[in-house]
Amino acid sequence: MFDKIDELGVNAVRMLSLQSIAKANSGHPGLPLGAAPMTYVLYRNHLNVNPRDTKWFDRDRFILSAGHGSAMLYSMLHLAGFDLSIEALKNFRQLNSKTPGHPEYGVVDGVEATTGPLGQGLGMAVGMAMAETHLASQYNVNGISVMNHHTYALVGDGDLMEGISHEAASLAGHLRLGKLVVLYDSNDVSLDGPKNRSFNENIQKRFESYGWDYQRVEDGNDLNAIDQAITNAENNTVKPSIIEVRTVIGYGALNAGTNKVHGAPLCAEDMAAVKETLNWTLPDFEVPAEVYQRLNDTLGQRGAKLDAQWLLKVTSLNKMAPEIGTQFQLAMNGKLPADWREALPTYLAGTSEASRITSHTVIQALGKKVPQLWGGSADLASSNKTNMECEGLYSADNLSARNIGFGVREFAEAAAMNGIALHGGTRVFGSTFFVFSDYMRPAIRLAALQHLPVIYVLTHDSVAVGEDGPTHEPIEHLMSFRNMPNVTVLRPADPNETVAAWETAMTHTDGPTLLVLSRQNLAVLPGAGHETGHKVAKGAYVVQDVPEDKIQDGILIATGSEVNLALAAQAKLAAEDVAVSVVSVPSFELFQQQSSAYKRQVLPTGIHKRLSLELGTTLGWERFVGLEGKALGIDTFGASGPCGEVLEKFGFTVDQVVAQYLALE
Amino acid sequence: MFDKIDELGVNAVRMLSLQSIAKANSGHPGLPLGAAPMTYVLYRNHLNVNPRDTKWFDRDRFILSAGHGSAMLYSMLHLAGFDLSIEALKNFRQLNSKTPGHPEYGVVDGVEATTGPLGQGLGMAVGMAMAETHLASQYNVNGISVMNHHTYALVGDGDLMEGISHEAASLAGHLRLGKLVVLYDSNDVSLDGPKNRSFNENIQKRFESYGWDYQRVEDGNDLNAIDQAITNAENNTVKPSIIEVRTVIGYGALNAGTNKVHGAPLCAEDMAAVKETLNWTLPDFEVPAEVYQRLNDTLGQRGAKLDAQWLLKVTSLNKMAPEIGTQFQLAMNGKLPADWREALPTYLAGTSEASRITSHTVIQALGKKVPQLWGGSADLASSNKTNMECEGLYSADNLSARNIGFGVREFAEAAAMNGIALHGGTRVFGSTFFVFSDYMRPAIRLAALQHLPVIYVLTHDSVAVGEDGPTHEPIEHLMSFRNMPNVTVLRPADPNETVAAWETAMTHTDGPTLLVLSRQNLAVLPGAGHETGHKVAKGAYVVQDVPEDKIQDGILIATGSEVNLALAAQAKLAAEDVAVSVVSVPSFELFQQQSSAYKRQVLPTGIHKRLSLELGTTLGWERFVGLEGKALGIDTFGASGPCGEVLEKFGFTVDQVVAQYLALE
Repeated sequence: MFDKIDELGVNAVRMLSLQSIAKANSGHPGLPLGAAPMTYVLYRNHLNVNPRDTKWFDRDRFILSAGHGSAMLYSMLHLAGFDLSIEALKNFRQLNSKTPGHPEYGVVDGVEATTGPLGQGLGMAVGMAMAETHLASQYNVNGISVMNHHTYALVGDGDLMEGISHEAASLAGHLRLGKLVVLYDSNDVSLDGPKNRSFNENIQKRFESYGWDYQRVEDGNDLNAIDQAITNAENNTVKPSIIEVRTVIGYGALNAGTNKVHGAPLCAEDMAAVKETLNWTLPDFEVPAEVYQRLNDTLGQRGAKLDAQWLLKVTSLNKMAPEIGTQFQLAMNGKLPADWREALPTYLAGTSEASRITSHTVIQALGKKVPQLWGGSADLASSNKTNMECEGLYSADNLSARNIGFGVREFAEAAAMNGIALHGGTRVFGSTFFVFSDYMRPAIRLAALQHLPVIYVLTHDSVAVGEDGPTHEPIEHLMSFRNMPNVTVLRPADPNETVAAWETAMTHTDGPTLLVLSRQNLAVLPGAGHETGHKVAKGAYVVQDVPEDKIQDGILIATGSEVNLALAAQAKLAAEDVAVSVVSVPSFELFQQQSSAYKRQVLPTGIHKRLSLELGTTLGWERFVGLEGKALGIDTFGASGPCGEVLEKFGFTVDQVVAQYLALE
Repeated sequence: MFDKIDELGVNAVRMLSLQSIAKANSGHPGLPLGAAPMTYVLYRNHLNVNPRDTKWFDRDRFILSAGHGSAMLYSMLHLAGFDLSIEALKNFRQLNSKTPGHPEYGVVDGVEATTGPLGQGLGMAVGMAMAETHLASQYNVNGISVMNHHTYALVGDGDLMEGISHEAASLAGHLRLGKLVVLYDSNDVSLDGPKNRSFNENIQKRFESYGWDYQRVEDGNDLNAIDQAITNAENNTVKPSIIEVRTVIGYGALNAGTNKVHGAPLCAEDMAAVKETLNWTLPDFEVPAEVYQRLNDTLGQRGAKLDAQWLLKVTSLNKMAPEIGTQFQLAMNGKLPADWREALPTYLAGTSEASRITSHTVIQALGKKVPQLWGGSADLASSNKTNMECEGLYSADNLSARNIGFGVREFAEAAAMNGIALHGGTRVFGSTFFVFSDYMRPAIRLAALQHLPVIYVLTHDSVAVGEDGPTHEPIEHLMSFRNMPNVTVLRPADPNETVAAWETAMTHTDGPTLLVLSRQNLAVLPGAGHETGHKVAKGAYVVQDVPEDKIQDGILIATGSEVNLALAAQAKLAAEDVAVSVVSVPSFELFQQQSSAYKRQVLPTGIHKRLSLELGTTLGWERFVGLEGKALGIDTFGASGPCGEVLEKFGFTVDQVVAQYLALE
């Protein structure tokens, strides 16, 4: 089935990779030389994509989880006809190029996910496969399959050592994601040397324990065997599949089969050796025309045809089930239904409710109006209050259900959410205790880097957790996420701010949003209601100003549960004839984006007596209180005890706040 | 073998747990009711500890990885004669009690590790077992076994879902840690409901794939079967063992076998039901004297005897191999040899070297002088430069070697380091790229919370990484760790600061130290040398002041690689007759601890023109530059390209720094 031209094709992937790396004098030659055959076979015969319509919604997805093999992916995309020229390959790893050091989503046409941090590509692939099943269950009606594609991933030994590979694979096995096919580039070598220095699992047994199908290809250069294994995997529709392809890292190079060939460019002598092994005689960056032709005849024509057929299907859907068709269009475009806000609640003064409870109410309201919304928890739904009560649990037997049980797998949850968002067609949220956001952190970073609109519902947001103690009490988390680029952190202060925070999250499509919510009750703030949305969107606002007939002495600045405390302190100070305003700061990031004029309005330049209140670390609060103000926070770990006693211990009582304020000079 | 008294003992563990939880009106009754039998059997017949000498160095270690079962552990410790009174149990989950919500190391006598964040207890147990093998290989000489104990852990379904359970178990299997025995409380229920909502692995197959021995006990109340299984596990000295004990969560309660009994106190009716099932008639917090007696006769006498025997062995060791005996004493006490600093290098002006390279030199020097130092990398030793060149790779066949190959398992690496530190007897370091510290973060937090003196060598510390691009370029990491309580972050600016940073790390025994090191060369700073150690220990110091005959205009404040940039900018500003000092801030935390006078000396109060330079996020730098200064940093993700171009893109050139400074008002 494969012929000389295909051999040329495989070697073209290898040679372009090596040449890109050599020109950049930087990169990883080992993986491309070993894994080019499986990648070529996948693209040639299996991957249904259309290089001229790369965002075709029902295309197959491919993720190179071993992102250090970027040169191979770029070479393959180039040969397959994607918008990636030889010029681009020559600019490998250069500033502002379309060929950055690791694959970057949104930068490189045909790259479906940003990879490099090991294991996460697999996690994202699981999310993509989940999205496909869920969308298929929602939109494949009247016998029309508008959603029916595979998700492929290529992983290396490093990916499978990472803990997230366990979480993600276990979840995929549980969900019986039959359209997920993983190619495992098994070469017995990792960066530091032979893999058996630190790794000697039985991968077959391990993946079978998760409920996966396992196959093994003994010779990573055997195109027919690889092809057959992928076909077998596709035919197994009830289990995810892993194909262990035995390869030689750096195949053809002088140090083939060793770690020396993993991550540094080959020297000239070594380049010559590879060329000789591969019988490659063309000048650098030249590829035989037959190779382009072959991939055009196979992948190119197949993709174009399937894409065209799909368009007809969508037309049929629109005709036969217009309501579903309309919703499908909205979903594909990432748009919310026009009336999505309608069921959102408003809370009146006098109400007091934990923000996680308000969030639960909001999720019910959104769930009704926004069919593309789904989400879940890492086995804490009953505490995070993230269950959609009208829905069942998403499972192999109930794919249209909108509650996802991620299991105690926070990292895979966050990575799968990235995959779901990358896939498109739904809006996803995930939850856990705020303190365990640490477990998700590497994936939240990738969400931010990829500008993905995922929503994290992170409850139990401070030492007010109480009895569970320091292992369960976030301290540094708020400021640590405020430090992460392109993340929007929202810590609402009352039920109305919580509704507004959810609104902000739903309309924020350029990056992830963290909703940081309380376990304990929060009273509705004065002056709240429908206006809160606008105020929260500005990131900070004056909740209660000084009376008009008083001269402002200072400002109390607070977030979340501490805003009510600030109001109480304000009242007590007023009784002593000290007039301070109270500012709520639901989001540092949103406030940062406001005009200088607005910022000065909230925090007048001339007022230096500023006290911030937040149940978290203080480093960073100087941005608002300056060197003359003071940040009241917690710079140690928390404590186990009843909530009220813990708060008192850390100085978060009205009297202590008043005393702290009065001590300011 | 077990009799009525033992049944009473098991039920005493259950009842004390329930009563503690009821009194606190907070806690997790599900696990204690199900897992009390295995815990009781372990303590009664297997765990070699001495309640009257709880720090006996060769004791067995037990970690309750499922830390929410704290009430059970406290009840067991109380019955076994540890310093934990009935009064303490009555204060369960109260502020400043000896019985916090989750087990806390250092707070509760007999608690070997702080647990609660799932999966990490298993990771720490692996580290403890590693420490035991390594110490045994170093100090068991002349036929005297001063180190010969087991490490036990109790895990639940949640622990095994977490990714770290994969990393840790795979590592343990690879290292053939035959003295590690894990009890798996297998009850088919997790917080949100039946486990099969999200988890249906074949645990036997999975652990066998890692090279573990697997056993199953069908009835979690069958004390003899549990006892036999633990004995079998102990007899298998070539593989770590996991024993799946099938239990009923909340055994005896009305909602036994469901998630309703997991995490909330039982109501009075339910308490009555349990008492009836268990045939328990005593008043609250009362235990039959025979139970105390039984545990004293078994665990108590066994432990006291073994402890006494061990002391004799140590005496023999001191006599027969005095040098090794002396070193063993030092190691047990966590003391360094007197001459540990002697081989440390000093660098002269004119030298330029990456701090990761200097660190490599330091590791060689320390390796020679400090036999208890060992460490490794998560498969990046060749990049992190953490290899001790005179040593082999620690493995089952070479247990005395001091290079640890953790594999691509950053989280397990960090958790194992915690276990190694908790065990005592060695000093451990671990490494990876700084950006992947995110993967370790939950375990770094537990190191800080437990005050463990572990050292992280985190290289490739900024966008100066260059070609690898944003997935490999830390941005928010520095400030995020500065926000974590009890962590000391050091980012040295030159080779001498790097040596000093290592010195600080080695002498800091109250918490973890992060050494944040460069990939690229750093020139030796002026005025450096032997004095650098004192300066670095202060956290910040004036590298180069304004000339005496000039009036100071401002301050350039920098860390790491940016200090040399600040010096170049200082020179250029001087040429324009603008006199600024340059301050190096290797550590925010250490500077924070200095006197106000010293702080004012470094950052004079009257000088408001302050520019900070750091290749990381700016939020937090206001602590030093105030509202009038400016922080030059990077608040977006990085970019892929040659290092110099990337630095220029982000404004880190002499000209741009000078321009930024001159723009200050």
